[in-house]
Amino acid sequence: MTGRSLVAGKPGPRISAITVTPIAVVDPPLLNAAGLHAPYALRTIVELVTDDGISGISEIPGNRDIDQALEASRELLIGRDVFQLSEIRQVLVAHFGTDTAAQRGEAPWDQRKMVHIFSAIEVACLDIIGKVVGRPVVDLLGGKMRDRVPFSAYLFYKYEGAGGQLSFGTDPNATGWAAARQASALNPAEIVAQAKAMCAEFGFQSIKLKGGVFEPRQEVDAMFALHQEFGPEVPLRIDPNALWTVETAIQYGKEMEPILEYLEDPTRGQEGMAKVRKAVKTPLATNMCTTSFEDIPNSIALGSEDIILSDHHFWGGLRSSMTLSGICDTFGRGLSMHSNSHLGISLAAMVHLGAALPRVPYALDTHYPWQSDEVIVGGRFLFEEGSVAVPQAPGLGVELDRTALAALHQNYLACGLTKRDDETEMQKVQPGWKFQSVRW
Amino acid sequence: MTGRSLVAGKPGPRISAITVTPIAVVDPPLLNAAGLHAPYALRTIVELVTDDGISGISEIPGNRDIDQALEASRELLIGRDVFQLSEIRQVLVAHFGTDTAAQRGEAPWDQRKMVHIFSAIEVACLDIIGKVVGRPVVDLLGGKMRDRVPFSAYLFYKYEGAGGQLSFGTDPNATGWAAARQASALNPAEIVAQAKAMCAEFGFQSIKLKGGVFEPRQEVDAMFALHQEFGPEVPLRIDPNALWTVETAIQYGKEMEPILEYLEDPTRGQEGMAKVRKAVKTPLATNMCTTSFEDIPNSIALGSEDIILSDHHFWGGLRSSMTLSGICDTFGRGLSMHSNSHLGISLAAMVHLGAALPRVPYALDTHYPWQSDEVIVGGRFLFEEGSVAVPQAPGLGVELDRTALAALHQNYLACGLTKRDDETEMQKVQPGWKFQSVRW
Repeated sequence: MTGRSLVAGKPGPRISAITVTPIAVVDPPLLNAAGLHAPYALRTIVELVTDDGISGISEIPGNRDIDQALEASRELLIGRDVFQLSEIRQVLVAHFGTDTAAQRGEAPWDQRKMVHIFSAIEVACLDIIGKVVGRPVVDLLGGKMRDRVPFSAYLFYKYEGAGGQLSFGTDPNATGWAAARQASALNPAEIVAQAKAMCAEFGFQSIKLKGGVFEPRQEVDAMFALHQEFGPEVPLRIDPNALWTVETAIQYGKEMEPILEYLEDPTRGQEGMAKVRKAVKTPLATNMCTTSFEDIPNSIALGSEDIILSDHHFWGGLRSSMTLSGICDTFGRGLSMHSNSHLGISLAAMVHLGAALPRVPYALDTHYPWQSDEVIVGGRFLFEEGSVAVPQAPGLGVELDRTALAALHQNYLACGLTKRDDETEMQKVQPGWKFQSVRW
Repeated sequence: MTGRSLVAGKPGPRISAITVTPIAVVDPPLLNAAGLHAPYALRTIVELVTDDGISGISEIPGNRDIDQALEASRELLIGRDVFQLSEIRQVLVAHFGTDTAAQRGEAPWDQRKMVHIFSAIEVACLDIIGKVVGRPVVDLLGGKMRDRVPFSAYLFYKYEGAGGQLSFGTDPNATGWAAARQASALNPAEIVAQAKAMCAEFGFQSIKLKGGVFEPRQEVDAMFALHQEFGPEVPLRIDPNALWTVETAIQYGKEMEPILEYLEDPTRGQEGMAKVRKAVKTPLATNMCTTSFEDIPNSIALGSEDIILSDHHFWGGLRSSMTLSGICDTFGRGLSMHSNSHLGISLAAMVHLGAALPRVPYALDTHYPWQSDEVIVGGRFLFEEGSVAVPQAPGLGVELDRTALAALHQNYLACGLTKRDDETEMQKVQPGWKFQSVRW
C-alpha cells in the first residue's frame, strides 16, 4: 500500500476462557421413531469469555463425545479474535476433520461432531460480537426482517408422565399447560386434546405431529382429527421420521393431500423422497434426508424435497444457516426450522436467525413448550400468538442464570445419562424394543 | 418475553445524507468484443453520511440511469439504520423491481439496475458499520482468511494511446509501466511485451488476455506466445467474451488445453457452454453466461461452467458474493472475480471480499493497472508480487480524496459521456463497425 495513513482497527476481543457445562433438563416421556425420551434431555452450555471480560454463550444438544471435543478444542481457540469466524472454523476442521454422513446416524437427531462444535463456538462468538458492537445478533446477520418469529405447535405421542424425577408420575398441583403436558397422548383424541391445550397456552397457529410412533393409520387419523378440530385455516404437518416405505408414504401422503401444509420426511433417503414427491402433491420437508451442504446437490438434482428444515446446531451455526437460506432461495426451495428439546439460549439463537431470514413462509419448530427448566436470567421466554419477540439487547439478548446452570449441571451428574439414547429408554418400558430405520 | 431486564441495543447509525458523484477516469483505447474503450471510463462514487457524521463510501460502474435511480432512492433510504441491510434491499426491490435478464444486455459488462444500486448502498453501509465497530470490512464477512489477495495480469489488445485528453496520443515523458501502457498491442508479440511490462511492474503471477477482438487464430497464437515466454508455471486464461461459436470454442479450446488454467466465456449461453465443457478438458469460467442467482440452477443442471467469476457490483454486494461463494462450494464450483475499469474504492471492496473467501484458488481479475487516476487519500494501491494487502483500518480502509473527486467529476462533466458505449467509440475509428454477439 501507499502511505495511506489510516489507523488499523483495534485488535478483536480474544477468547481467554471456554467453559463447557453439560446439563440435564426435565423432559416428559415423549415417543418418537427412535423410542422414548429419557426423563432428562441433555444440553451443553458453552461460555466463552474474552480477555476484556465479555461473555458469550451458546447451547447445543448434549453429548459427552462432543463435550469432550469442545474441551479438546480449548487450546485451539484460546487467544483467537472472535471476529475471525472463518479462521476458527478452518482450525477446528483441520483438527477434527470434516463430518461424514455415517456420523450423522439414522436417528432423527444429528450426531455429527464438527457442526455441533462450530455451532457452539460461532453462536457464542456472535453473542460477544453483538455485545461489543452494541447490537442484537440478528443485526449481524443482515438485520431484522420481522419483530416476532412464528413457531408451530409441536405435538408428541407420549406416555402419561411429567419427566424428570417424576418420570411417569404426574404433579397433582399442575395446572394449565403444565397439567396437559403430563397427560398421556396415545390416540387421536388425546392428540387433539394436547393440541388444544398447547395452542391455548402458546397461541400457535400451525400444528405439527411427531409421527413414526404408531402404525400409519392411527397417525393419519390423528391428522384428520386435528383438521376437523382446527379447520382449514390452521396448517398441519406430520413427521413420520422416515419410517414409512415409499409405498406407505405415497398411500397416506395422497390421502392427506387435502389437509397438509407439508409432509416431513415420510420416507428414508433422497431417492425415496423423490419418488414420493412425484406421486404426492403436498410439499415434502426434510431434516433427515438432506441434512448437510454435501447432501444438497443430489437433493436438487433429484427434486427430492421442497423445504429444508434448517437447524443452526446441525448446519454449523447461524451464518451457515443464512447461506443455506440463500441456497434455498436460489433453487426455489423453502426453508423452515427443525428443533430438539432445548432451553432459551438455543431459542434465542433460533429467533435471531428466524428474524434475519428473508422470508419465513412456514412457522418454525420448537420443543420449548415441553421443557419447564430454564438457564437464562428472567426465566422462560413467552410466546404471544405463537410467536417470540426478537430480543433487542446486544448479542443474543439472554444471560446465563448461574444458579440455574449449577442446578441443571447437578441434574446431569445425578441422572447418569451421557448421550441421547431413545432406544434404551424405550426398552425400559417395552423390553426388547428395537429401532427400525424403516418400519411400516 | 418475561421480565428479562437487558437493555436494548443502541439504535443504529442512521443514513442522513446520500451523495452520488459521477466521475470520469482516464482510460486507454482498449479493445474488446463490444468495441473500444472511450478515453474516459465512467464510475460513480456514492457517499452515505450518518446522523452521527460517519461517512461510508462505495464505487460502482458509471451509468446515468443508475445514478438517477440512486438519486431517486434517497427518500427510501434517509433515516434507515445501516445495519438493516436486508430491509434496505427489500425496500429498494419493492421500489425498483427485480432485475431482468434482458436488462443485463449482451455486452461483456452488466447493465442491471438493482444489483448496482444495492451494491453501492451495501458497501457504503458496511464501510460505516466497520467504522462504528472499529473493524475492517473483511471482519464483517466472517474474518480474514489471508493478508494479501492475489490478482492476475489483465492484458488487452489496444491501439496506441494513453487515453483521456491524449486519447490516441502518448505522453513522451512516461516511463516504466506508464510508457508500456500507452503502447499499441495488436499482435502476439505486442501482447507478450505488454505482459512482460505489466508483470514487471505489478508482480502478477498469472495472466489473462481479453480476447474476442481479432479472429481466434491470432488470439490463440498470442496465448501460445505467452506460454512460450512465461513457461508452464504462470497460469494463463483467455476470455473471448462469448463471441465464438460452439464449434470454434471446441476447436481452439482443445488446442489450448495444454496451456490454459481456464477458458472464460468461450461461447454465448449456458447451453453452448455446456457443449464446449463436454468436449474440452479445460475448466470453463463465466461472467456472461451465468450472471445472477436466477441463472445458477440451470448452470448446475447443465454443468455449463466450472468457475463463476463473481463481481460484487453485479451480484448485489459483498454479502451476496459470500452467499455465491457458499453456493459454489456446495456444488463443487470454483469462484474467482471479474472486473471492469475501476479505482481504489472498488479495489478495496474486492480485496476485503477476496480476503474473506474460504478459498481463492484463482488469482482475481482487475483492470486497475490500466487506470492512472485515483479518488482515495494516499493515492493508488500498490501491488506486491501481484497481491494487494488487505486494508487494516476500520471499514473499507480507504477515504475519499475530495479534491481528486471534484477533479474527476469535472472530467465527467467535460467528457460528455453518460454510459459505457464501446460500439460508438469503435465506430469513431472504424465507421460502420457493429457489435456482433457471435462473431467467429
